[in-house]
Amino acid sequence: MTLDNPSYIIDTFFAIFSMVLIIFMVPGFAMLESGLVRTKNVTAVLTMNVMIYAVASMSFLLIGYEYAFGSWEHQTAISKYAFFLFQMAFVGKVVNIMSGGVSERSRIIPLAIFTIAVGALIYPTIVNITWGANFLDGTFLDISAMSDLAGSTVIHSTGGWALMAAILIMGARQGKYNKNGRVKVIPASNIPLVTLGAFLLWIGWFGFNGGSVGSISSVENADAVALTIMNTNTGGLSGAIAAWSLTYFRYRKFDITMILNGALGGLVSVTAGPDQFTMYQPILIGAIGGALVVWFVP
Amino acid sequence: MTLDNPSYIIDTFFAIFSMVLIIFMVPGFAMLESGLVRTKNVTAVLTMNVMIYAVASMSFLLIGYEYAFGSWEHQTAISKYAFFLFQMAFVGKVVNIMSGGVSERSRIIPLAIFTIAVGALIYPTIVNITWGANFLDGTFLDISAMSDLAGSTVIHSTGGWALMAAILIMGARQGKYNKNGRVKVIPASNIPLVTLGAFLLWIGWFGFNGGSVGSISSVENADAVALTIMNTNTGGLSGAIAAWSLTYFRYRKFDITMILNGALGGLVSVTAGPDQFTMYQPILIGAIGGALVVWFVP
Amino acid sequence: MTLDNPSYIIDTFFAIFSMVLIIFMVPGFAMLESGLVRTKNVTAVLTMNVMIYAVASMSFLLIGYEYAFGSWEHQTAISKYAFFLFQMAFVGKVVNIMSGGVSERSRIIPLAIFTIAVGALIYPTIVNITWGANFLDGTFLDISAMSDLAGSTVIHSTGGWALMAAILIMGARQGKYNKNGRVKVIPASNIPLVTLGAFLLWIGWFGFNGGSVGSISSVENADAVALTIMNTNTGGLSGAIAAWSLTYFRYRKFDITMILNGALGGLVSVTAGPDQFTMYQPILIGAIGGALVVWFVP
Repeated sequence: MTLDNPSYIIDTFFAIFSMVLIIFMVPGFAMLESGLVRTKNVTAVLTMNVMIYAVASMSFLLIGYEYAFGSWEHQTAISKYAFFLFQMAFVGKVVNIMSGGVSERSRIIPLAIFTIAVGALIYPTIVNITWGANFLDGTFLDISAMSDLAGSTVIHSTGGWALMAAILIMGARQGKYNKNGRVKVIPASNIPLVTLGAFLLWIGWFGFNGGSVGSISSVENADAVALTIMNTNTGGLSGAIAAWSLTYFRYRKFDITMILNGALGGLVSVTAGPDQFTMYQPILIGAIGGALVVWFVP
Repeated sequence: MTLDNPSYIIDTFFAIFSMVLIIFMVPGFAMLESGLVRTKNVTAVLTMNVMIYAVASMSFLLIGYEYAFGSWEHQTAISKYAFFLFQMAFVGKVVNIMSGGVSERSRIIPLAIFTIAVGALIYPTIVNITWGANFLDGTFLDISAMSDLAGSTVIHSTGGWALMAAILIMGARQGKYNKNGRVKVIPASNIPLVTLGAFLLWIGWFGFNGGSVGSISSVENADAVALTIMNTNTGGLSGAIAAWSLTYFRYRKFDITMILNGALGGLVSVTAGPDQFTMYQPILIGAIGGALVVWFVP
Repeated sequence: MTLDNPSYIIDTFFAIFSMVLIIFMVPGFAMLESGLVRTKNVTAVLTMNVMIYAVASMSFLLIGYEYAFGSWEHQTAISKYAFFLFQMAFVGKVVNIMSGGVSERSRIIPLAIFTIAVGALIYPTIVNITWGANFLDGTFLDISAMSDLAGSTVIHSTGGWALMAAILIMGARQGKYNKNGRVKVIPASNIPLVTLGAFLLWIGWFGFNGGSVGSISSVENADAVALTIMNTNTGGLSGAIAAWSLTYFRYRKFDITMILNGALGGLVSVTAGPDQFTMYQPILIGAIGGALVVWFVP
């Protein structure tokens, strides 16, 4: 007995599996961020995280998706609904990256308007010219040939630039600097939540990067998916170990938020090309990502 | 090379995947409910949640399943063990829906006896006459032709009616009304847990509704599963946004527990027929579900 | 249309699915343990848990895996990267079992050195002579014929013996005994975290035991996987119910940490052979596991 279209079936299942893992990043971000901020801001941070997921996804469903890919029928390799779900799972992340950086300073209505803009317009434009319909096709601005498996540029960099703009406007958190301009460390209010959030993000990353291979239904693709997830994980391991060693040598103590931030730095670092690396290269790449976090976060 | 029975294999895998997602609803309910109650009741609420999962599932294994479906061999499309697991994952939910509504007022031994009754008798009877062996087959009471993909009637309504009976007997929570009969809002004791619980439920719902399609091993079924999960998610998004807007217009503030309850209201609303809707209808249905929560919860 | 090597594809997907579930045990252990210890030790416990996952996995990647299995190419049934990921997910667990038992007494640098030893040497040696390359093959010490589906001996017993050695050296927790030698119960500091952690472990166990079947790509294997997961779950249910009943009859009260420990005891008990049992035997085995926890934990 054979199936009519086994790769369609298996890859649709795989896209759903990947999307579910990415959705774990929604509570992941919420727990990480609410554990890191001061107690008085926990509820506000959680409200923003829920709003971001709801508003960004809805904007993408109503407007952004069709703009990014040109049509709901742009591919037939997997179910169009599963393709949408996987793409939709990405879109809130861009806003999360931005909003995480301006925690405790943002107000919800302006952030909601920004979220609509990202879900309906900004992110879909970036997707359009990289992975999507590509309205720049044939012009000298065409950048769709670049390799960005799971959105190091498309997602993390878009989120990061938006964050820089926001920080330049908003300035630092109240209480971040004392009157001499020295940094005052604002301690995390709930370390178990930070740890839980970091690991939910870590697990979500397996779906984020693994699912970005796009198919598991051939021997080559199954290998690519497994290698991608392995390298993603190695990046996180290496980032954590690098941050752990560096904080120890620099401060003679262990700081779990720094270790977890190092892991996340390692995970971000390998996201551009986890399918392109051998299985040892992510050790170096992740370590650099983890080390940068320690160097630049005071 | 081909497999002997690929649909059996893939659908067994898919049933296990769906069941695992539903099991995330066990800690999901536990976190949601323990975060919503007053601090003094947190441990009792958690104890009940663990008891419910253990006792309801065991009752269903020993008695309920065979009563509901007539035999362990009633189907051969997937592994009989996987079929059981998926069905078992549902049964505790009926009790959760009831017990969540009488939080802070129920005692554990009576609730355990009620849980045995639900797992061994009440829920299996409902399943029997709708999805199962149907002892009413051929009588004028036969209702098995109704469409209820993932248990809007079979699960949520059974749980809801049991809840109404329980509330009529037990009355309101101590401290819910002041001496003038006005409602006193009992604030949630732990908002991060509420948020985490709501998202674990949300993710579990993908398995709940998606798995209820019953098969992913044809192009049509893969589409139905993906559409079901997409519509489930859209219902949640829309419920959250509706509750968010309504509380803002009514009270000029944002209330995260209301937003999350709105999301859950939206998710319940679309559970009867997420495979029957187009991909835009759940926006309306979820919004109604979310709005009802705001209107009726003071 | 057929696929080239469907069992390779499906079993690689299944190994990734199982590995992801096991990784949920990392935050699971972290939440369980940090919820059980006194508040002052929460951060230290979380730091150790993160360190263990990072260091054990990295040691296994760099040294242990090749030593355990002889080569990265020792099997061709699934992607070698997926095979590694599944095996890697196990290795930190051995250290977790040990470190969980010496909570609040271990220091991080010695524990890190021990973790390297486990990941690079101790655990791989045990795997080598049981599931792996077997350097004892042909000698009278060859024990590779024993049946240990998911590591009752290989993982839990290795962790347990290491724990006994550690406890003999370190002694009890400060404050565990009063001056008359009586046990003082040290209450858990955060019951919701304990509950969340226990259920993340429970869910991870589905991947741990189910994935240990090694393949889902035949009717027989799909049945074996589903039966294994069903029996694993039944062991947990039964352990929880046994611990619940026993604490009630002994102390006339319910103790949620005891119930959850009973569930974990039940889960451990069925881990040696969940594929060998009928579907009712785990009720007895899990109950014994749950009861032992109540009898021996004061």
